[in-house]
Amino acid sequence: MPLAHLYVPSHLNEDRVRHLENAVHTSLMKTCNVQESNHFAVVIRLPTHSLIIDPHFGNVSRSADASIVEISFLSGRTDEQKRRLYRSVIEQAQQHGWHAADITIALSENALIDWSVGNGLAFVDLQTST
Amino acid sequence: MPLAHLYVPSHLNEDRVRHLENAVHTSLMKTCNVQESNHFAVVIRLPTHSLIIDPHFGNVSRSADASIVEISFLSGRTDEQKRRLYRSVIEQAQQHGWHAADITIALSENALIDWSVGNGLAFVDLQTST
Amino acid sequence: MPLAHLYVPSHLNEDRVRHLENAVHTSLMKTCNVQESNHFAVVIRLPTHSLIIDPHFGNVSRSADASIVEISFLSGRTDEQKRRLYRSVIEQAQQHGWHAADITIALSENALIDWSVGNGLAFVDLQTST
Repeated sequence: MPLAHLYVPSHLNEDRVRHLENAVHTSLMKTCNVQESNHFAVVIRLPTHSLIIDPHFGNVSRSADASIVEISFLSGRTDEQKRRLYRSVIEQAQQHGWHAADITIALSENALIDWSVGNGLAFVDLQTST
Repeated sequence: MPLAHLYVPSHLNEDRVRHLENAVHTSLMKTCNVQESNHFAVVIRLPTHSLIIDPHFGNVSRSADASIVEISFLSGRTDEQKRRLYRSVIEQAQQHGWHAADITIALSENALIDWSVGNGLAFVDLQTST
Repeated sequence: MPLAHLYVPSHLNEDRVRHLENAVHTSLMKTCNVQESNHFAVVIRLPTHSLIIDPHFGNVSRSADASIVEISFLSGRTDEQKRRLYRSVIEQAQQHGWHAADITIALSENALIDWSVGNGLAFVDLQTST
């Protein structure tokens, strides 16, 4: 129900992309109490000229693999949880060939009533009815 | 001015996708007082490995056609309007071959000043000047 | 760190798209105190049937080049800054062949803690540590 959007350069091979997506999901589980089955993500592969990322903003040095991860999730996570989320994504992705500088993350929040995971029911009602 | 983002598997035929998009738009009209001409949507077709949707989260059973609809719109809709929106999207889509479990919806809200629908004018100013 | 999403029809040539992206970035610099190096954008090219934009909503007349720009950025910009942003994007884009009516803009806001621009650090910590 967090929904992750990964914007990655199209030259990345499938394994690299899958590892990033997995890093995001497992980090959400580890730092933000997301269930393993609560897994929703879209991967948008873009040619270089359609993925504009400054190579140096924030005093880091990015490679041609630089990617952007946007995560929409419920409001309520603390600043410290968000910090742990950032660290965890990078730590997990680094184990699979990612450079720490190459992953930019942006979060956006909404409310519990803003999610429906099927059958036309608000998720909040699904929870209280089961 | 609601902006809908549809993330659908690339194997879906054009009619199926169009019916989902239409279900979203007509449901926004019916449940959220959106005008018929207030119609903005983007459809992103993704190969299976780029559209990650858990097949069972929320106690539903999703097929390979499972899709995600994100809607950005003005804050101010009530919880009950959002519930009716979810139900309506599914009801309309079901009339065109969609399974009720296959449509996940996420909403995000912004303010009236956050929209410009052309000519460099804020929408809020357009309304008060006409 | 503002993240711009451009949804443009796939028939537009590369220069037209680049000029729009540049109009958005330079306008953010001019009206919202964004640094030149703070430059992040994704461009999604869509076939006509996947980019649904009403041709007349808001009393404007849109062409087949009509496009949508979504910008996620920090909360805190004033209404007047947003108005100037809308005007500036159109003024700059018009200098490169864009029609004023063809650019729809939607803004969404988040908080400083919601951004990490690399190395697994929250941007807010990067600023205070340098």
